[in-house]
Amino acid sequence: MTIVLGHNRYGKAENRVVRIYRDTDRHEIRDINVSTALKGDFADAYLAGDQSKVLPTDSQKQTAYSFAKEKGLLSIETYALELGAHFVDTVEYVESARIEVEEFEWQRVLVDGVEHDHSWVRKGQETRTAAVTVTGRGTERTNIVVGGFKDLVILKSTGSEFAGFLEDPYTLLEPTHDRVMATSLVAQWRFTTIDVDWEATYLSIKRIIIEKFATLHSLALQQTLYEMGKAVLEAYDFIAEIRFQAPNKHHFLYNLQPFGVENNNEVFNADDRPYGLIEATVIRDDLPPAPEAWESYTGLV
Amino acid sequence: MTIVLGHNRYGKAENRVVRIYRDTDRHEIRDINVSTALKGDFADAYLAGDQSKVLPTDSQKQTAYSFAKEKGLLSIETYALELGAHFVDTVEYVESARIEVEEFEWQRVLVDGVEHDHSWVRKGQETRTAAVTVTGRGTERTNIVVGGFKDLVILKSTGSEFAGFLEDPYTLLEPTHDRVMATSLVAQWRFTTIDVDWEATYLSIKRIIIEKFATLHSLALQQTLYEMGKAVLEAYDFIAEIRFQAPNKHHFLYNLQPFGVENNNEVFNADDRPYGLIEATVIRDDLPPAPEAWESYTGLV
Amino acid sequence: MTIVLGHNRYGKAENRVVRIYRDTDRHEIRDINVSTALKGDFADAYLAGDQSKVLPTDSQKQTAYSFAKEKGLLSIETYALELGAHFVDTVEYVESARIEVEEFEWQRVLVDGVEHDHSWVRKGQETRTAAVTVTGRGTERTNIVVGGFKDLVILKSTGSEFAGFLEDPYTLLEPTHDRVMATSLVAQWRFTTIDVDWEATYLSIKRIIIEKFATLHSLALQQTLYEMGKAVLEAYDFIAEIRFQAPNKHHFLYNLQPFGVENNNEVFNADDRPYGLIEATVIRDDLPPAPEAWESYTGLV
Amino acid sequence: MTIVLGHNRYGKAENRVVRIYRDTDRHEIRDINVSTALKGDFADAYLAGDQSKVLPTDSQKQTAYSFAKEKGLLSIETYALELGAHFVDTVEYVESARIEVEEFEWQRVLVDGVEHDHSWVRKGQETRTAAVTVTGRGTERTNIVVGGFKDLVILKSTGSEFAGFLEDPYTLLEPTHDRVMATSLVAQWRFTTIDVDWEATYLSIKRIIIEKFATLHSLALQQTLYEMGKAVLEAYDFIAEIRFQAPNKHHFLYNLQPFGVENNNEVFNADDRPYGLIEATVIRDDLPPAPEAWESYTGLV
Repeated sequence: MTIVLGHNRYGKAENRVVRIYRDTDRHEIRDINVSTALKGDFADAYLAGDQSKVLPTDSQKQTAYSFAKEKGLLSIETYALELGAHFVDTVEYVESARIEVEEFEWQRVLVDGVEHDHSWVRKGQETRTAAVTVTGRGTERTNIVVGGFKDLVILKSTGSEFAGFLEDPYTLLEPTHDRVMATSLVAQWRFTTIDVDWEATYLSIKRIIIEKFATLHSLALQQTLYEMGKAVLEAYDFIAEIRFQAPNKHHFLYNLQPFGVENNNEVFNADDRPYGLIEATVIRDDLPPAPEAWESYTGLV
Repeated sequence: MTIVLGHNRYGKAENRVVRIYRDTDRHEIRDINVSTALKGDFADAYLAGDQSKVLPTDSQKQTAYSFAKEKGLLSIETYALELGAHFVDTVEYVESARIEVEEFEWQRVLVDGVEHDHSWVRKGQETRTAAVTVTGRGTERTNIVVGGFKDLVILKSTGSEFAGFLEDPYTLLEPTHDRVMATSLVAQWRFTTIDVDWEATYLSIKRIIIEKFATLHSLALQQTLYEMGKAVLEAYDFIAEIRFQAPNKHHFLYNLQPFGVENNNEVFNADDRPYGLIEATVIRDDLPPAPEAWESYTGLV
Repeated sequence: MTIVLGHNRYGKAENRVVRIYRDTDRHEIRDINVSTALKGDFADAYLAGDQSKVLPTDSQKQTAYSFAKEKGLLSIETYALELGAHFVDTVEYVESARIEVEEFEWQRVLVDGVEHDHSWVRKGQETRTAAVTVTGRGTERTNIVVGGFKDLVILKSTGSEFAGFLEDPYTLLEPTHDRVMATSLVAQWRFTTIDVDWEATYLSIKRIIIEKFATLHSLALQQTLYEMGKAVLEAYDFIAEIRFQAPNKHHFLYNLQPFGVENNNEVFNADDRPYGLIEATVIRDDLPPAPEAWESYTGLV
Repeated sequence: MTIVLGHNRYGKAENRVVRIYRDTDRHEIRDINVSTALKGDFADAYLAGDQSKVLPTDSQKQTAYSFAKEKGLLSIETYALELGAHFVDTVEYVESARIEVEEFEWQRVLVDGVEHDHSWVRKGQETRTAAVTVTGRGTERTNIVVGGFKDLVILKSTGSEFAGFLEDPYTLLEPTHDRVMATSLVAQWRFTTIDVDWEATYLSIKRIIIEKFATLHSLALQQTLYEMGKAVLEAYDFIAEIRFQAPNKHHFLYNLQPFGVENNNEVFNADDRPYGLIEATVIRDDLPPAPEAWESYTGLV
């Protein structure tokens, strides 16, 4: 029985690159957290401490910053594809590169109702994400792009039920036909192409998800997730699958009866832990799976 | 030399109260984190473990939730004043009550461009704060209200300098006449009255601060803070003073010269630590100070 | 092309269970964060909002707390196995259960050098983890146990090099033959059996890893990880594989030359971001893989 | 009514200085987070953007790192006093300097039971703190030192009551004569001298506090805090006062009765929020107060 090296990767995580476009008086800003990871012929580093095939993580960092100027940083998907292709094409021992990006959005300051040219407030809502896996050279090249977001905190104060569930000896929960439903949504969708208008598509998918959350009368968070995913796949045939992770951020009705105060779904305690946690994937049934799309590197994406 | 009990307070921190108004189909939401602290005749609890004068922190919690219905929760300042007055007026041994509130803002989901009646996304920008100190009964009553916000992350990509500074043997910094300036602003302002339109005033003060940040050509973060404060005090004669705490969130120009890439204030590293930290207060010179206004209880406000 | 439900799971995350053993005056404490997730015949909940096969996450929570008494909580692996088996064996529609546990260790207070019977200080060092996957009933039953820890922050001030690496046009890094090496280590090992002395094995594996970190003259973090893993597999033939995730917590030598101060690896800046991030797996080459072992549910483990 | 500049300070926060002593093969490590803040004649920077009296925060940072070598870093109190004195004595416009330090402790790795010379694991327990205020020059010089710690998480599983409390219409809490008591303690003590063996005193004060927590039969957290403080002041006549902030980390007995399971203070839910929060100060009654000792700059200390 031999002991051998298995799965391995290395890279530079969480480079905080900020790119200002200032060719005119009206500046633009892009603010990202980018991580790079390389797979390839690196066993010697592990087995013998031989670094001769290892491009330092510091060099990966330098590249990430330089590419924000050399290649530009207008869409995180395009930027990540450029960066991934660079490592695979120029570093001899690299077989595939994984680039993960978080993007923090800014909104222009209004002065007397007019958008300011070079001042912004951090938007602070969901964090947009991208995870790109570039593998192989020339005709062997594959590009897998996963777009998404995380930390979209969304709530509805009615239009949500939870009833008719299975009961076992540990079941104390009462069914309800009117509750607060809230989650901090993580969504990630896999593209089947890289010929995409990344900005318009992102905004549209986010809009579809939010609108479905709002308008669907929900019998369970599970159902809401599935319907959101289905709506996205129906809208874009170049989306192969979409994955959700949704903590059920419980809002417990507060018992005010001891004080003679009525509480008709008006006062809640927003609890921290524990929380229900629902995972759902909506897929097309005729497409080959792409497990490497989901091999998270940083856990941030 | 005698050992005695000095400053003491106790209460219930971080009650996560969510209040839904649902009298019509168009619901409203208020989402807060409220802490209560009582001062008074509580020495026996410390010195002898005698709780007979101590209202449990659990009772304070129950009251905070119940008051969201009994008194309503439309403005955090009003809610905090009601809660503080209740403890001082009804609990025999309480001399003063401190109520600190964080408010998390939600924005309505748009469906086909129309605001939804009962669905929201967490806005995620600055957190609004209030700290209210209610002291004494009847004609002895004083109410001190401090409004504010924290975590307003704001950035300008030009219009900011730092030059002409003092140099000592440890000074390596180069002067600059064009830099990125960014901060995560904490602002707190003290009112001289409680006869205030809290909602309109909050929005207006925030707007004044943001507009000044954007439009002032800044010679230093210090100057920007002072000018923001001055503008607020000029606009509202019922604001006695305003305090800022502003981390200078450094955006360091990234050196791309080794790669033959020009970088004219276009690519930056957003650094985490250390950070410059500037504190400034802008006050009216003819008003008595109110030190108890600033006796933070939770450190959250 | 049909849109269908893919991977899905649901459960209750982050139940903070504390168990005190107090059968004698000398109490014992176990302090855990446990998450449960169920897979099975739950498609109706997603597709139609039909909960009739869904055991509420609240019932899973009740069970997690009750089992701390019913079954005991002396080893997290045993507790997780009991809990997983319960869901698979008693809930009709469950095909497999994933139980993830974090354990927070406490150490007894010393009073006059003697261990106190019922007072502890949180140890605060690494967090021990377990992830158990129980699948199938009766003769179909499989139990996969992954033990581990996270947040073990470890540092050596010499005995570490990084030199001889590949250089590309973005390489600025200078080789070094003496540096500080530090990481916040995540390690997870998969058992091939459940007939294990969990407590002794945990302590021993942790000791092996720490000793190897200290004593190996390191040519790169990659090498250190591999040698640590190899040592564990050599010590325990019932460990099939071990995975590491190791951020390279950079300690940059601070340049004191401008001040005429020598700095021979004495003063460092402990940087936050970015950081190198190394992943390594050490495996036995003759064992079938167990991909479900690594399907993290909460991201906490 | 004139608008003027009030309280102001500025400095560099959170410098992550790591100091290795390596004069022999047995290295020593000190790992700190240090913040510097200056008060003085800086109004021109705020009022006119004139930096000619302002020593950059970057220069303060350089000094903090250089002093770790120039002056050494064996006790954080001594290091902070050196750094504060430097700013007051050498920077013309500085009237006082505030130095705040967090120290992260490391413990030596054991190899075959023997302490390793240059490898450590982060201890991870409480964070030691110091806050030093140096004011004036020559005979005007005052030095105020506040030592302390934070995040000491401590728990006792019996020997704690809470009963006989005041009840009002919002009181639902039941009295208890046996409960889990736990807190994450913050303690800060003010010295009346700087002629102190800082290391021995720190260890001794921590020991006194922990032993009192363990051995006192507690009628309330208030009582425990007072007795801990009294014990410290009785032991050291150069401690003028000690301040505690203690969140009551509630461990709620879990109701297992619905499942027919007995729970005699054996299974608890460790709740996150809200939490009771107790502040207590124990002082000598004949000493002048030192309000500037407590003017926290970073909120970290």
